[in-house]
Amino acid sequence: MSVCYEKSVPQPVDEYVRVPPDALHRFVKSVFVGLGLSESDAEMASQVIVTADMMGIESHGVQRLKRYYYTPLRKGIVSPRAELTIVKRGDAYAVLDAGNGLGLVVAVKAMEMAIDMASRSGVSMVFVRNSSHFGIAGYYALMAVNRGFIGIALTNTRPLVAYTNTVGRNIGTNAMAIGFPTPKPPPILIDMATSVVPRGRIEVYARLGKRVPLGWGIDERGEVVDDPQTILRNGALLPLGGIGEVLGGHKGSCLAIAIDLLAGLLSGSAWGPYVGSPTGDKPPRVGHLFIAIDVGAIIDRDLYMERIEEFKNYIKSLKKHPKADRVWLPGEKAWLTMETRKRIGIPIHTSTLQELREISIELGIVNEFSELMNVAKPAKEVMC
Amino acid sequence: MSVCYEKSVPQPVDEYVRVPPDALHRFVKSVFVGLGLSESDAEMASQVIVTADMMGIESHGVQRLKRYYYTPLRKGIVSPRAELTIVKRGDAYAVLDAGNGLGLVVAVKAMEMAIDMASRSGVSMVFVRNSSHFGIAGYYALMAVNRGFIGIALTNTRPLVAYTNTVGRNIGTNAMAIGFPTPKPPPILIDMATSVVPRGRIEVYARLGKRVPLGWGIDERGEVVDDPQTILRNGALLPLGGIGEVLGGHKGSCLAIAIDLLAGLLSGSAWGPYVGSPTGDKPPRVGHLFIAIDVGAIIDRDLYMERIEEFKNYIKSLKKHPKADRVWLPGEKAWLTMETRKRIGIPIHTSTLQELREISIELGIVNEFSELMNVAKPAKEVMC
Repeated sequence: MSVCYEKSVPQPVDEYVRVPPDALHRFVKSVFVGLGLSESDAEMASQVIVTADMMGIESHGVQRLKRYYYTPLRKGIVSPRAELTIVKRGDAYAVLDAGNGLGLVVAVKAMEMAIDMASRSGVSMVFVRNSSHFGIAGYYALMAVNRGFIGIALTNTRPLVAYTNTVGRNIGTNAMAIGFPTPKPPPILIDMATSVVPRGRIEVYARLGKRVPLGWGIDERGEVVDDPQTILRNGALLPLGGIGEVLGGHKGSCLAIAIDLLAGLLSGSAWGPYVGSPTGDKPPRVGHLFIAIDVGAIIDRDLYMERIEEFKNYIKSLKKHPKADRVWLPGEKAWLTMETRKRIGIPIHTSTLQELREISIELGIVNEFSELMNVAKPAKEVMC
Repeated sequence: MSVCYEKSVPQPVDEYVRVPPDALHRFVKSVFVGLGLSESDAEMASQVIVTADMMGIESHGVQRLKRYYYTPLRKGIVSPRAELTIVKRGDAYAVLDAGNGLGLVVAVKAMEMAIDMASRSGVSMVFVRNSSHFGIAGYYALMAVNRGFIGIALTNTRPLVAYTNTVGRNIGTNAMAIGFPTPKPPPILIDMATSVVPRGRIEVYARLGKRVPLGWGIDERGEVVDDPQTILRNGALLPLGGIGEVLGGHKGSCLAIAIDLLAGLLSGSAWGPYVGSPTGDKPPRVGHLFIAIDVGAIIDRDLYMERIEEFKNYIKSLKKHPKADRVWLPGEKAWLTMETRKRIGIPIHTSTLQELREISIELGIVNEFSELMNVAKPAKEVMC
């Protein structure tokens, strides 16, 4: 039985094409090579971006290629050949300096190191300073999961959220991902910003000219508003739990701070207001923390697999709320979207295609862009 | 300048007395000794409970002594002399079996071990299976903080929350605490359940005959209700982020699950529906995870202290929301309450006093209870 589910459906469909994931990957990789990354680094970076699109997290996919990765690399704010150096290390931890390298590459290497360490020491923590935007946190958690480990990835971000009882953008949407291996797919994969929604979600509403639900953001005076433009222009996102303390907004703020302090302040990277934007003029100095746990060090691996399968069945068998569509496992939507898009392709908006075309001209890789376009189909003609 | 702030003020004041923290500690310790704990274990358990009261987290303080600790120990469901055994260990991790011992004691010993390990290995994780309710998670994070370490404590709980898109009590209020040392008090201390509010908060409203804010809980059909009795009787708490997915309720559910899987399922303890109630008839088999990080292994300690002091100043200097009372650091309210109650004493409700009196009769420690009463003052006569 083939899956037909997408977390987010292209809308309006007329403005989208679909491209096969491997074709998109080849093109994105050629962009990174064109920007000066090594072949293998470009491979890594492209995989992270295309996986975001496959999972239905378009906000972190190829639509961000130009603004978040291409431009900073072109401007030299992010360095294509930065060396990732070990500042400190023990058997179960390390502190790395990314030297303003590309977060997408840095994070893959840091998580590899965390997995290696955990395979010897049982558990591990790898702190990274002076990195840049690393895309979807879930990718790195999944790396661990694919090796049978539990993986955790934390990152801070530039300030976008109003800390509880304040106005203005003063703390990050600091994100976390946690993945747990399971005997059968999908694995349990949690991947979340600590704000109610990430900024990308508000941008989507702005583009579609829709109002956002009350509770996602505030204006500059602290009023909860539903106009996405107001939130994006002078307002701020709200922490998970919303405004004030009545519904737990201070808990969302605390989660954001915990991540900032672990991944940013402790790692020796920037924190809070000092974290730069991917679209800014200075190295963003983003900080990350990767944690890996070897399941077999903690519990009999077969027993763990039995237990987590039972856990999944338990969640799926819970009594559904009468107004809900379905009971979802963490990561299930992303997984189903990935399975679907492997078959029918990744939707790309025409304005994103235009950006990719411009990039291909600037980098002299127009053939590579043509190859991508040759396999693109109008989204409305693609049946699931 | 002496502090005069309490996170929660006794109300109605006529129904409360105030007792000095050390007097309360002596009495609570004598209860645990009377229940068969060793002198040093009783000391630990009492410290955790009295600290909860000092911090203004009365829901986890002496008002729970009878139901959560005294009764299970009397019934033999929790064992006063359980041995804490090491099931597995490496240099940076351990798995402990608490043998149905008292969570308050088990957790202190496990965090001690985590701190010891981290002082040698830089970072550490100590998993605990077959424990029982451990009180406030923040106590254990603070143990690490008091030694200059970063401390994290996670625990699962019996099911009280409705997982996103479901009805009924099916996942725990699974809690976490994270503490960061600072050069000057207060330390940064995050201590939170992953539900909007813990069950104790709803119980307080029920006792006062007040309606709860909409968004804290649902009835058995999944409707958001403001009657605390309905929520407590047949309903469920809501995960942080509230009902459904619009305001991020799935994120709160995911946090609860992440803690359950790490502290419960992975540790080899009970998870989800299998975690027993402190007031039930079976060993609760609660699971915990303690993490310690030696700040000095990751970053120059002086630099860290400089940075975190700047961080605190940054948060305190943020522009206040016009409708908010004040901008609070994580843990600041609890810290100020502790400072205040060190001076003016801990408020205890008369019904709790009655429970303590009954306990003292049953255990033959009426002299100890008299000593407590001798130093109690009517709360309304105590000036801050």
